[in-house]
Amino acid sequence: MPRSVKFRKVAGGVAAAKGFSAAGVRCGLKLKKNALDLGLIVSDRPCSVAGVFTTSRAAAAPVGWSRDVVKRGTARAVVANSGNANACTGERGARDAAAMAIAAGQELEIDPDEICVASTGVIGRPLAIDKVVAGVLDAAEELSPDEDGGAAFARAIITTDTVEKTIAVRLIVDGKVVTVGGSCKGSGMICPNMATMLAFVTTDAAISSAMLQAAVRSAADVSFNRITVDGDMSTNDTLLVLANGAAGNKRITRTGRAFEQFAAALEFVCTHLAKMIARDGEGATKFVEIRVRGAASESDAVRIGRAIGNSPLVKCAIHGNDPNWGRIIASAAACGARFEPAKARLSLGGKLAFEKGVAADTPLTELEAAMKPKDVAIELDLRLGKGAATVWTCDLSREYIGINADYHT
Amino acid sequence: MPRSVKFRKVAGGVAAAKGFSAAGVRCGLKLKKNALDLGLIVSDRPCSVAGVFTTSRAAAAPVGWSRDVVKRGTARAVVANSGNANACTGERGARDAAAMAIAAGQELEIDPDEICVASTGVIGRPLAIDKVVAGVLDAAEELSPDEDGGAAFARAIITTDTVEKTIAVRLIVDGKVVTVGGSCKGSGMICPNMATMLAFVTTDAAISSAMLQAAVRSAADVSFNRITVDGDMSTNDTLLVLANGAAGNKRITRTGRAFEQFAAALEFVCTHLAKMIARDGEGATKFVEIRVRGAASESDAVRIGRAIGNSPLVKCAIHGNDPNWGRIIASAAACGARFEPAKARLSLGGKLAFEKGVAADTPLTELEAAMKPKDVAIELDLRLGKGAATVWTCDLSREYIGINADYHT
Repeated sequence: MPRSVKFRKVAGGVAAAKGFSAAGVRCGLKLKKNALDLGLIVSDRPCSVAGVFTTSRAAAAPVGWSRDVVKRGTARAVVANSGNANACTGERGARDAAAMAIAAGQELEIDPDEICVASTGVIGRPLAIDKVVAGVLDAAEELSPDEDGGAAFARAIITTDTVEKTIAVRLIVDGKVVTVGGSCKGSGMICPNMATMLAFVTTDAAISSAMLQAAVRSAADVSFNRITVDGDMSTNDTLLVLANGAAGNKRITRTGRAFEQFAAALEFVCTHLAKMIARDGEGATKFVEIRVRGAASESDAVRIGRAIGNSPLVKCAIHGNDPNWGRIIASAAACGARFEPAKARLSLGGKLAFEKGVAADTPLTELEAAMKPKDVAIELDLRLGKGAATVWTCDLSREYIGINADYHT
Repeated sequence: MPRSVKFRKVAGGVAAAKGFSAAGVRCGLKLKKNALDLGLIVSDRPCSVAGVFTTSRAAAAPVGWSRDVVKRGTARAVVANSGNANACTGERGARDAAAMAIAAGQELEIDPDEICVASTGVIGRPLAIDKVVAGVLDAAEELSPDEDGGAAFARAIITTDTVEKTIAVRLIVDGKVVTVGGSCKGSGMICPNMATMLAFVTTDAAISSAMLQAAVRSAADVSFNRITVDGDMSTNDTLLVLANGAAGNKRITRTGRAFEQFAAALEFVCTHLAKMIARDGEGATKFVEIRVRGAASESDAVRIGRAIGNSPLVKCAIHGNDPNWGRIIASAAACGARFEPAKARLSLGGKLAFEKGVAADTPLTELEAAMKPKDVAIELDLRLGKGAATVWTCDLSREYIGINADYHT
């Protein structure tokens, strides 16, 4: 797919696209005083909807509800709460997820079957549904099509995140101005195949739900599915994309130039959001881009990238600015992908560290200097084939332990 | 296989069995002053030899050498060094591994093809082979068939371990006293499929190398392959078992009572050593036993046990004495094994935490109290089938980060 598509960044996040409003309010689920914990996105007209969800066998109640909405293909709104994942909550959880949609439906005069729900936070505690329903009514009052609506929504969905995560871009599709904007949350329990991660993207592009689903799947595969903080997939991972057609472009119903342009913008937005998650990983002090090429296949490249990105030893070495290429090679060699030490070349921050099966000639002081920046690139060329993939992660610090040993049930 | 075999623990480690001597000396590879770093085991007669090795595609040079010895089936001695893994060292590494065997062969008047070698330590640095060869000569002088020989060997193979790891047992096989003893090292880069782990077991049982290999494979599968510290497999993982027949039992050449008795003792020794590694995991403050049963298959049980044991979030929760069953269920549900939340039952330290898809009635204070001991048992009954497996791990502490961020290349 050609990616020579021009777009510019704009403000507004999930409220940037025409016809969308958003809000974020406090309903009282988060312990922290004044912290927003309920977000709402509404479109002024029906949307094609597509999504990707956790493959956990204990998928949370809201995942089940939203999956059904996506199957039907049409949505008008999204209700999302933070502070409680509504996961491992049994039948009561399913009722509570439905109640979130029903409350929003009554208030907004929308069929609840066209309302997606999402939750994130503690697992295994019943949702204080009265608070959530009250929050939905408050949020409906606060809906705004402007930047502040998008910003409040972004704040309402975060948990251990240290920053809100928002991006929007504008491009021309079929002679019309199309906007794609989104927000996400995620910081721990982050791993390929959708982690404790909620991401919501809205667009005013006109596109069928089938083509939207194709674009979403493909964008997720190279963005949210290529980040890892700690190798854990969660019960709640959700990416939802709503497209309301307000841009007025000819409805995209097949592949072709318009689809490619839209897909490129969606991929850019998803990749940007995914990288923000890796950068904001729990306790992270460094952002790591792992570029694998020359693998026997793309799946081998992804496997190796993930193995390196998931290795606690590699992540600790990065934390300590240690050019410990041995741990990187050990990870790549152990993951099951094709790997021949004598062929592989590994660079750290642009400096060659390993080739021909042994340490490269680069002086250790140069390698050490290459590890010092906050952003570190690991480049591994396997010289076996054409498979390539980029994976993003962060370092592993004492702070991660603090966050996750002290965050109590 | 019936496991109603009686045996008693004895001292001596790898030197406990009849006809074996051992030594540990300092050759100067480890930076730490006075630290032993070269170990030697010698049998007074030829042994059947069996082994299990890392599946890393960048297996270290000594692994290649020892694999060949095991293929031929006969050995007389083992030379092992710590302080340098002789991994990612190319052709020079292969020459150095051979030189270790040749030096020992000359000194001991044994065919080098009957001498196993093993290395552990930093990856990617050429071995100071002169020091190693000098160490081999020193060790040959120090060989002792007594406890102190076994103890010195155990000290010589450790790296970041905080304790030496040794066990030996004695049992009656076929009317003869048989001894099985061993030592291992390992603390970080520890994961199923043999991690940065060296383990050596000696026995005076008479057994063919084919039957020995069968017993070793089966023992490794339920011991060393069921521990995890950090999910990383290393380039050097090696388990070697030498059986010299000095006990005088009828040579075991097929399955039957004698084989079962011997296999039970070997499994006990391997399991004991493996658990010592998990308990001594880098930075560990807690020892965790994960007992999975009722799985759809044994491989599902192992997969779930490993997923829980590898989860940094679960390990952090255990570090913080947090009965965070949600993270355990999330790990089990995400690993790809069959899992039905509504059927599963999870207990922490003997207290029911989760059943019927939701939190159990056990008061939080009771669950918290159950997490406080240094040894914690996680019991998960999936109620789907008969698959069962036990996996051992440790918690994840700030100290792990310290050890691995500050241990420099």
